[in-house]
Amino acid sequence: MTELVGGVVPPVCTPLTTERELDVPSLERLAAFLIEAGVHGLFVTGSTGEVAYLTDDVRREALEVVAGVAAGQVPVLAGVIDTTTTRVIEHARAAKSSGADALVATAPFYTPTHPSEFYGHFRAIRAAVDLPLVGYDIPVSVGSKLPTEVVVELAEDGTLSALKDSSGDLDGLRAVLERTEGFQCYSGSETLADLGLFIGAHGLVPGIGNVDPHGYLRLYEAARRQDWDAARAEQARLRKLFELIYVGDARMGRYSSAIGAFKEGLVIRGVIAGATTSEPMIPLNDAERAAVRQRLDEAGLL
Amino acid sequence: MTELVGGVVPPVCTPLTTERELDVPSLERLAAFLIEAGVHGLFVTGSTGEVAYLTDDVRREALEVVAGVAAGQVPVLAGVIDTTTTRVIEHARAAKSSGADALVATAPFYTPTHPSEFYGHFRAIRAAVDLPLVGYDIPVSVGSKLPTEVVVELAEDGTLSALKDSSGDLDGLRAVLERTEGFQCYSGSETLADLGLFIGAHGLVPGIGNVDPHGYLRLYEAARRQDWDAARAEQARLRKLFELIYVGDARMGRYSSAIGAFKEGLVIRGVIAGATTSEPMIPLNDAERAAVRQRLDEAGLL
Amino acid sequence: MTELVGGVVPPVCTPLTTERELDVPSLERLAAFLIEAGVHGLFVTGSTGEVAYLTDDVRREALEVVAGVAAGQVPVLAGVIDTTTTRVIEHARAAKSSGADALVATAPFYTPTHPSEFYGHFRAIRAAVDLPLVGYDIPVSVGSKLPTEVVVELAEDGTLSALKDSSGDLDGLRAVLERTEGFQCYSGSETLADLGLFIGAHGLVPGIGNVDPHGYLRLYEAARRQDWDAARAEQARLRKLFELIYVGDARMGRYSSAIGAFKEGLVIRGVIAGATTSEPMIPLNDAERAAVRQRLDEAGLL
Amino acid sequence: MTELVGGVVPPVCTPLTTERELDVPSLERLAAFLIEAGVHGLFVTGSTGEVAYLTDDVRREALEVVAGVAAGQVPVLAGVIDTTTTRVIEHARAAKSSGADALVATAPFYTPTHPSEFYGHFRAIRAAVDLPLVGYDIPVSVGSKLPTEVVVELAEDGTLSALKDSSGDLDGLRAVLERTEGFQCYSGSETLADLGLFIGAHGLVPGIGNVDPHGYLRLYEAARRQDWDAARAEQARLRKLFELIYVGDARMGRYSSAIGAFKEGLVIRGVIAGATTSEPMIPLNDAERAAVRQRLDEAGLL
Repeated sequence: MTELVGGVVPPVCTPLTTERELDVPSLERLAAFLIEAGVHGLFVTGSTGEVAYLTDDVRREALEVVAGVAAGQVPVLAGVIDTTTTRVIEHARAAKSSGADALVATAPFYTPTHPSEFYGHFRAIRAAVDLPLVGYDIPVSVGSKLPTEVVVELAEDGTLSALKDSSGDLDGLRAVLERTEGFQCYSGSETLADLGLFIGAHGLVPGIGNVDPHGYLRLYEAARRQDWDAARAEQARLRKLFELIYVGDARMGRYSSAIGAFKEGLVIRGVIAGATTSEPMIPLNDAERAAVRQRLDEAGLL
Repeated sequence: MTELVGGVVPPVCTPLTTERELDVPSLERLAAFLIEAGVHGLFVTGSTGEVAYLTDDVRREALEVVAGVAAGQVPVLAGVIDTTTTRVIEHARAAKSSGADALVATAPFYTPTHPSEFYGHFRAIRAAVDLPLVGYDIPVSVGSKLPTEVVVELAEDGTLSALKDSSGDLDGLRAVLERTEGFQCYSGSETLADLGLFIGAHGLVPGIGNVDPHGYLRLYEAARRQDWDAARAEQARLRKLFELIYVGDARMGRYSSAIGAFKEGLVIRGVIAGATTSEPMIPLNDAERAAVRQRLDEAGLL
Repeated sequence: MTELVGGVVPPVCTPLTTERELDVPSLERLAAFLIEAGVHGLFVTGSTGEVAYLTDDVRREALEVVAGVAAGQVPVLAGVIDTTTTRVIEHARAAKSSGADALVATAPFYTPTHPSEFYGHFRAIRAAVDLPLVGYDIPVSVGSKLPTEVVVELAEDGTLSALKDSSGDLDGLRAVLERTEGFQCYSGSETLADLGLFIGAHGLVPGIGNVDPHGYLRLYEAARRQDWDAARAEQARLRKLFELIYVGDARMGRYSSAIGAFKEGLVIRGVIAGATTSEPMIPLNDAERAAVRQRLDEAGLL
Repeated sequence: MTELVGGVVPPVCTPLTTERELDVPSLERLAAFLIEAGVHGLFVTGSTGEVAYLTDDVRREALEVVAGVAAGQVPVLAGVIDTTTTRVIEHARAAKSSGADALVATAPFYTPTHPSEFYGHFRAIRAAVDLPLVGYDIPVSVGSKLPTEVVVELAEDGTLSALKDSSGDLDGLRAVLERTEGFQCYSGSETLADLGLFIGAHGLVPGIGNVDPHGYLRLYEAARRQDWDAARAEQARLRKLFELIYVGDARMGRYSSAIGAFKEGLVIRGVIAGATTSEPMIPLNDAERAAVRQRLDEAGLL
């Protein structure tokens, strides 16, 4: 079984054709681009990958494409994102057949599930499919936070191999790090990545790492050698770049703006063919696309 | 096309065997029980029906069973509950083939979708599958409320035929009623059903209407003849009965407690064979089951 | 001791001069206007009265002016609004000397007080000043809701004589009404006032009752004689009028817009001299003032 | 005018006698204890100082006592905490007469004030009283966060001299630091203090710094010389100590538990005479007090 070993693991964007079908050549180029940059893993069908917008078929196809390009060079993590246990397990089985090296699952959502029920949820997934399981803490999507004691207990009994923390709660992340041993913690924050590493997180899952993987790799390496000045300087550059997510904020909300901007950035950098996003996301307009280009220019990516 | 005409439309529970498979004979008995009681429609795979816990196959099967029992006597509404447009459309197509007379869809969830994107979401669903579409406003599950102006515009252009309001916001429901004509509004509240009808709602979708459909039918009929004293008195009885949802509150959260209690109530009344709920819901224990029985006794249902 | 007996009890606006001092003649006219209209009580230094903006001196002065005009014709309730027990008690003592017939206090705010501490808070206030005490449930300001069990226990032991419910939670209000006897409940909602009375509330505290007390009195009387058609019709008219609170919404937030609009309405109706509001509220501009006038015109108040 | 220069500025506890009057000798000893430890300033009547529980007289008295002990050795900051502008200005005037070197004010609370109104609020306070003004960002108490653009604009025009950030939002704090020059930023977090300094904050305002000022001073000095290993190690010790705030969590909520524990810690360390807290806070019981002692023991403070 491939081991999770931290590092930079971008949540891979899912390029779409103008008819909103999977753009396979673009996805292949994107996976290759990231691997060549030196990333330590690829996270497919995560939130940045528009997982909640993709049919089961497209999820599977995207995973197969990326697993094919990765070909064992780096582990491929698959988001198995659905409302509750039984539905997640179906995705987990499919992901295993499609080549996933590890699974990433959230707490139940839509249903007002109680934290006391989280244990059974993750244990049932782990028992059903024999792959390392990563707990995905993303309160903005799920509506509840994974409590520290739940994560710690599931780490101790081997249910969870890792945590992907997109909660923004560095205090909580620190508590998990203090109370576990050999349990891999990934920070999902683009703008506090240096702080995540400073407190001991093992890896990063930055959405904008699609557009600038080299930046996050430099940041990660600086942190590994405890060169905090370099880490902070790189983070400062990446924080500035990250502001491209706000280009369409006023018209469409932050998520659609961010996903649209990441994809546009990949188009500008010549990695993918088009910036189409899923229904019902509002697409960026010309002015917003120009603003993305300017941010890339300022960050030295053109 | 079957028309939606208000009335009492219970969100049908989904009985499960102890192995957590669909208990078809129990579901047939439940559908027949409700139709005999005189309900005006059946809402399958709603939140009370544990929709978010059911695989696509079980959702389809449950709908087929209920549509088979209904056999045109009352319209069957199907919840097509998934995170975003494309996924919802897949459920919608399946539901149409399985005999649904109308579809019930929420705003996108998991994804931080902006209200300006709700229009495209509902319009794409309506365009894809030719069945009346009911907007399902359930902020507790979805994380956002359907704004009045969105509902009104989608009612006016014919995208939505009806609203199921489980927001608890009577002020907002009233605003929709004031600003639409011939648009069917259903209240999803068990405990403020009389108020919903008082302000002009056309129908009720009470979860505990599985257990006591006759009570909600009496309440509905009293409201129709403007006998508000009778409506309030019936509501008072039903409010008391509804407290059974709290039997397991402290151990498992309100939702699992409520679903467990509804199913236990149906077992006690001899309608379904067992009270098994989906993973990862914690089941009621003996003391909690006894408390359900006592509530039924006090409400005169034994 | 004056008894609280329900009815319409407007939360009296606090007219200010252009220098932001208390405009005594305007306040006298406003109090007289409301009493002549037939209101059953006056609530001074409530949220609508800008209590949180007024110095202790102005609060006292406003209360003395209104108590002077009321002169025993109707009870005068005084909001004793401050963060915690000891500070509230100081206001309570001052209010008693200034002629209050009853006190209205919220749960502690600013401090993250636990519901288990609410009991001691209200009991200490009641013990310190011998006046009927009204619990003021206003989560939007206080950040927490008064739990039903707290209100019921404090009603039973005589700490609270009444509840002013500005939570919008009709389910919770109903629970309090079901579980208390002779405990006066006031609804603070302008737009669901008919529903509050329908479920048994004893009185209304409508902010816009400053501008149109006659409307709320008609609504209240219709409800008292169980003429629900008349109550609803009056409520519909008042709901329309109430939309004037949104005139400045986009520029300044709802509260400043509402208070500015109420005061402007009183100026237009010739009751008070000017519509100045407290710092740091942004004042209405000409277009917004014109919109207020139009709403009054449409509601037949010109 | 005394300048704010960062460093460790504990929010001084307010010792009370068993009759809940200010315990002046204890407060004098506490101020002296902190100054001897080497703190860079003292923040009186902050949230940790129970400001929201203290009458105006006690606030003034506490400030005078601390200013008297400080006697110009370190600047004394005074919390001027009240709902809105005019009330805050009254506290500000009083604080200036009582010897404050700087004022600390929050955004308005209780009132649903719009961010566009925050500018006028802080400018009016600054204009009324000629002392450096610190913006206090504490969403948990105030209900809203100070937006970055508000802080930056008020820093640029000289209204605010500093920010005390108790929001926990390191991303936002970083944004303020990036966009201002010579503007002092204090982190109010006990457990992420090292991260605050890592991103460039100038000072710390740790509640538990009452009990262990030496620990925060060591942390601060380590950060100043960029010795991040030492800073993290000290922070780890302090994080462990900080868990004493949970001793009474289950019975009374976190705030009362924390304040009670801080005061108990000061009693155990022989600095103040008693651990009485304000009404309506529930006091710690014997078991909880013993747990505080154990935490101090483990942290090497006995």
